[in-house]
Amino acid sequence: MRREGIQAIIRPRSIAVIGASRDPSKIGFRILHNVLSSGFRGPVYAVNPNADEVLGLKCYRSVVDVPGFVDLAVVAVPARLVPQVLVECGLKKVSAVAVISSGFKEVGNVELEEQVVETARKYGFRILGPNIVGICDTVAPVNASFCQGSPLKGEIAFVSQSGALSIALVGWTVLKGVGLSALVSLGNKADLDENDFLEFFGRDPHTKVITAYLEGIEDGRRFIEIASKVSLNKPILVLKVGKSERAMGAIKSHTGSLAGADAVAEAALEQCGVIRAPSFVELFDWAVALAKVPIPVGENVVVITNGGGAGVMATDAAEQYGVKLMDVPHDLTEKFRKYMPPFGSVFNPIDLTGMASKEWYKGAVYEALRDHRVHSVVVIYCHTAVTNPKEIADAILEARRESSVEKPVVVSLIGGDECFKEIQRLTSEGVPAYESPEKAMAALGAVYKYKRLRDKLLETKTYPDLIVDKTTAKTIIEAAVKEGRTTLTPFEAAKLAKCYGIPVLEKRLVTSREEAVKTAEEIGYPVVLEIESPQVIHKTDVGGILLDLKNAEDVAKGFDAIVKSVKEKVPGAEIRGVVVRKMAPKGVEVLIGVHRDPFFGPVVAFGSGGVLVELVKDVVFKVAPLSIEEAREMVEKTKAYALLKGYRGQEEADIDAIVNVLVRVSKMVTDLPEINDVDINPFFVYGKGAGGLAIDVKILLKPS
Amino acid sequence: MRREGIQAIIRPRSIAVIGASRDPSKIGFRILHNVLSSGFRGPVYAVNPNADEVLGLKCYRSVVDVPGFVDLAVVAVPARLVPQVLVECGLKKVSAVAVISSGFKEVGNVELEEQVVETARKYGFRILGPNIVGICDTVAPVNASFCQGSPLKGEIAFVSQSGALSIALVGWTVLKGVGLSALVSLGNKADLDENDFLEFFGRDPHTKVITAYLEGIEDGRRFIEIASKVSLNKPILVLKVGKSERAMGAIKSHTGSLAGADAVAEAALEQCGVIRAPSFVELFDWAVALAKVPIPVGENVVVITNGGGAGVMATDAAEQYGVKLMDVPHDLTEKFRKYMPPFGSVFNPIDLTGMASKEWYKGAVYEALRDHRVHSVVVIYCHTAVTNPKEIADAILEARRESSVEKPVVVSLIGGDECFKEIQRLTSEGVPAYESPEKAMAALGAVYKYKRLRDKLLETKTYPDLIVDKTTAKTIIEAAVKEGRTTLTPFEAAKLAKCYGIPVLEKRLVTSREEAVKTAEEIGYPVVLEIESPQVIHKTDVGGILLDLKNAEDVAKGFDAIVKSVKEKVPGAEIRGVVVRKMAPKGVEVLIGVHRDPFFGPVVAFGSGGVLVELVKDVVFKVAPLSIEEAREMVEKTKAYALLKGYRGQEEADIDAIVNVLVRVSKMVTDLPEINDVDINPFFVYGKGAGGLAIDVKILLKPS
Repeated sequence: MRREGIQAIIRPRSIAVIGASRDPSKIGFRILHNVLSSGFRGPVYAVNPNADEVLGLKCYRSVVDVPGFVDLAVVAVPARLVPQVLVECGLKKVSAVAVISSGFKEVGNVELEEQVVETARKYGFRILGPNIVGICDTVAPVNASFCQGSPLKGEIAFVSQSGALSIALVGWTVLKGVGLSALVSLGNKADLDENDFLEFFGRDPHTKVITAYLEGIEDGRRFIEIASKVSLNKPILVLKVGKSERAMGAIKSHTGSLAGADAVAEAALEQCGVIRAPSFVELFDWAVALAKVPIPVGENVVVITNGGGAGVMATDAAEQYGVKLMDVPHDLTEKFRKYMPPFGSVFNPIDLTGMASKEWYKGAVYEALRDHRVHSVVVIYCHTAVTNPKEIADAILEARRESSVEKPVVVSLIGGDECFKEIQRLTSEGVPAYESPEKAMAALGAVYKYKRLRDKLLETKTYPDLIVDKTTAKTIIEAAVKEGRTTLTPFEAAKLAKCYGIPVLEKRLVTSREEAVKTAEEIGYPVVLEIESPQVIHKTDVGGILLDLKNAEDVAKGFDAIVKSVKEKVPGAEIRGVVVRKMAPKGVEVLIGVHRDPFFGPVVAFGSGGVLVELVKDVVFKVAPLSIEEAREMVEKTKAYALLKGYRGQEEADIDAIVNVLVRVSKMVTDLPEINDVDINPFFVYGKGAGGLAIDVKILLKPS
Repeated sequence: MRREGIQAIIRPRSIAVIGASRDPSKIGFRILHNVLSSGFRGPVYAVNPNADEVLGLKCYRSVVDVPGFVDLAVVAVPARLVPQVLVECGLKKVSAVAVISSGFKEVGNVELEEQVVETARKYGFRILGPNIVGICDTVAPVNASFCQGSPLKGEIAFVSQSGALSIALVGWTVLKGVGLSALVSLGNKADLDENDFLEFFGRDPHTKVITAYLEGIEDGRRFIEIASKVSLNKPILVLKVGKSERAMGAIKSHTGSLAGADAVAEAALEQCGVIRAPSFVELFDWAVALAKVPIPVGENVVVITNGGGAGVMATDAAEQYGVKLMDVPHDLTEKFRKYMPPFGSVFNPIDLTGMASKEWYKGAVYEALRDHRVHSVVVIYCHTAVTNPKEIADAILEARRESSVEKPVVVSLIGGDECFKEIQRLTSEGVPAYESPEKAMAALGAVYKYKRLRDKLLETKTYPDLIVDKTTAKTIIEAAVKEGRTTLTPFEAAKLAKCYGIPVLEKRLVTSREEAVKTAEEIGYPVVLEIESPQVIHKTDVGGILLDLKNAEDVAKGFDAIVKSVKEKVPGAEIRGVVVRKMAPKGVEVLIGVHRDPFFGPVVAFGSGGVLVELVKDVVFKVAPLSIEEAREMVEKTKAYALLKGYRGQEEADIDAIVNVLVRVSKMVTDLPEINDVDINPFFVYGKGAGGLAIDVKILLKPS
């Protein structure tokens, strides 16, 4: 009898409203009222020990008294009463419970929330919430929320971590004519979270696009896993807030949810094919386009306009949003010429001029749709004195019908009230339309972004079978852990990196002049000598470093000189010895690193080294593990790439060597969960085929 | 009798519609109809030789037959008839003519357009157009256009280079509730252009904000001059689209190619206090805010919200748009606490929570307005189940009234139809309101941007009295011009730079071993030797350069070696000699350049040198002449600035030396109009007080 929890939440078969109230100002009243007026066809039960009847329904004292099966229990009683109510839900064997009530973790009542989750686990049902607005579903249909009104029917699922925003956006989407398949308020995510709904809507045949408002993604690894699969099938758009430092503070103070570093979230979202929207306006603008148009088969876009200025706006916006305006082949330009005066333009944007009639629009759009070399069409219209928006909308719809071709057509109608009406009509007929050329182009840009992200997810990923010395690596880490250290010594870090096949500049610690000479002879000249002392930070300032020593004599003298100088200049410094290392030839400086994000797990970083990395923030992130293709993409995405490829006659650098190290570092942190951070900075890259060298390796372990 | 042309165009006293038509499908009908129905109070005359009466008005055969004074003639006859009509206007001594007719330069009829301008000059009247939609003015009021309907009355002037957009935006602004003081269609700008209207609206008491849609700014110097003055008094917002092919074509040098036409326009607009909007949506969103709110006295902004999520959106947007959320002082947070439950947040954004009532909103907004440490207030509201948008709008308006304080208050009401209504009401009552927190914050950002740009225009500008050798400089240029050259030789360029006090690395061309040694002795060791040959591009590859030569013997040997190597490796190369130059100590590499933009005149560039400049496009532009303050601002705006200031323990560079050279270069190109491009790359900057050195100077002259 009991059904899968999430199914029962979105598409319940029967509902009990616990805390149903006769007072119209109470949430318990509003929810029951919404359920009853939403067209829900299953049995509805009211539960309230203090009433006999609510809104014409018989009222039960407890959910256990309800005669029929209860698929979804919606709980709107004061927080302190929730645990007892949930026990009763458990006894009644409900499929799932939506806990509307607030007064839990969000106000500091962590224990009460834990108690609620335990009860659900004990009785084997799932919980949505607590602290939610509820659920609206336009398929069942059902509105089990205290929103005012219901969303319009549509194909966009919306999952929201903010309750206030859920209510407000129901009204906003209705005003804008945006239809939803369902709306879910996540609340405190005590049990079910965005990942569960992502999975559900991923296989929901009534949902074409999934949208979400998120403040934090707590289980980032699972999010990536699910989103990577769902994105292959349908687009996911996310409004993830908390970019600014200050916003992160605000998020902590208001829901207790920790927002991960924004750069990591940004990288992770892109990696699993998710499109990030800058505000809810774009979230739905773009979702509408993705729900309505087919995915284009190619990148060739044609813009048809009746205003030169509007055409230029579209061109500027195309560049901004990654939409590629094609060079129109000659034979096609000749076809377009039939629909414009002699001073019209066939140089994409196709400018039919202000004289453009319904027939010209229809003809031009038809030609663009019929030509197999054109993959998407953007139609721009400025309301003129000689036409009205209805004619133009008709022209577009007729051309589309008569061409019998399925291609993305995106429209902008610029003008007043009449344009607004036709924008809504076109959109509802499958042609997304917007008030400005920029918005239309941004929406098509989102369609192309989805296409490219999905194509990337479909590409082969190669995870090479690396030969590594995991045993030794584990021994090194265990030794440090045993000593209670979270920082590996430079020697341990270098050794660990070498276990994973990362080329590291060899460094040896010596404690005597003789040993220094012997080591230098073994390593080969020229060498560098550096003091090893915890008290010496700036080695150069105290004569603690000597470069480019070319023979035994210089090394012997150098050893003495360094020790003497440091002893004089830093009295009392603990001198552990002197590090002898090869004087590495200078290569292009890059940075390779790893940080273990609390939500998304290990994240690999690659970027320009030296001062550049901090001045221009030329760093790219990706969540580990990395395939060879992903590692290469990281390198290609940096500004440093132009330099590495051999900029302005410089030698091409060994990019394969970087890719190799990125994959190996990714493998290292995936194999060894004790590692928290890795910092290879600088890594010197040499000419093509000549490899690279980690000059400095730092490794931090997770605090125990 | 005759009035100032532009005054007659915007606020005519009497109008003659020449080409008035009885056919409602004709533009001549629409214009007369609009004039008559727009509430225009002056005399209106219809002119049409083929009709006796149009729309109830007696029709005159020619404008000369009109009995009264004609202030503005609106011409809507076929292009070929325009010249004769204009002669008649001249004879009638009209103040100005708006030529609606198209069929001139925009379709290639350049001569016809010139003829029209000549006629106007001859008879001493001004022309708007041709190829325009007309003029709407809500002050007179008058609608002398073929737009459908008239704009709402308001305080925003709109000047548009696109006719189609003008018509479309009349409808759009009405739909959005945006009021205009006037709308002008510029058309082909045969006579009057954006600068004339900028000047007019700058002193128009009915206009608070000037907005413009521009594709090109032909007279950029005049634009800067006028806009710099107008911006001190009222904000100018511009939607500038596209990139001018014409400007790009003229670009030859390195600096020139960096100074894409659009980058120059961007820099020029900012320099004269103009705010650039990304689309017409933001153009009017921001104009409304600037027309409605006072300029804030300080940067402290408080956000008041009832939704944590919406507060985070506002916080992210604040950072994006340069709005500074203040840390609220403790005594004020205590006041805010009165208007929220215990789990509300007083960490700006002030989160009143979803429980927020009208009274709480009113109280919190009142406290924020009354506190003198708060300079602007952003109010965010998510439509909830417990309040309605009207209450909240009332709360804001009441708090504003009762506080008796004039401060910017910007609002976002998130929700459906009811919110939309209140957005319009709030805006009309002087509180700009928007559908999303991002839009509200962007609008306040524009207000702050205007404040900062205006403050900068008000700052003192110091133009030092530089002692330069202009006479010698002119001689150098004249010599080159006489020889028909547009490129100065490296020696000429260096000499010219030195005339303007720019420190240049000394280079001398020698043709014998002995001369090389003698020159090196004079310059001082170490020196560099470089082959001078037009055929040798990559000197290093052919052994054509030798660095760090420390004595006479090395220089003598080096001279021979270089010549021999080049002769062997580049047979037939014309060897003009060997350049001897001092081995300059390595400094921080920067780039200093000038490009003479065809529209805005000489533009100075400063940025990171070396490969950096191209990889990260770290270049800042400003139109010359530069004050010391502007030159310093340029340096401060680059990413290189962090480096120059002494990044990560590096020595601070001599920023004053850069500022000095920027000012001198700016003076040089202002003094010498023959110079088209200057490229000082690299310029080495040394430690503070140690100056800098131009290593390479290239100067191009204007093609004759």
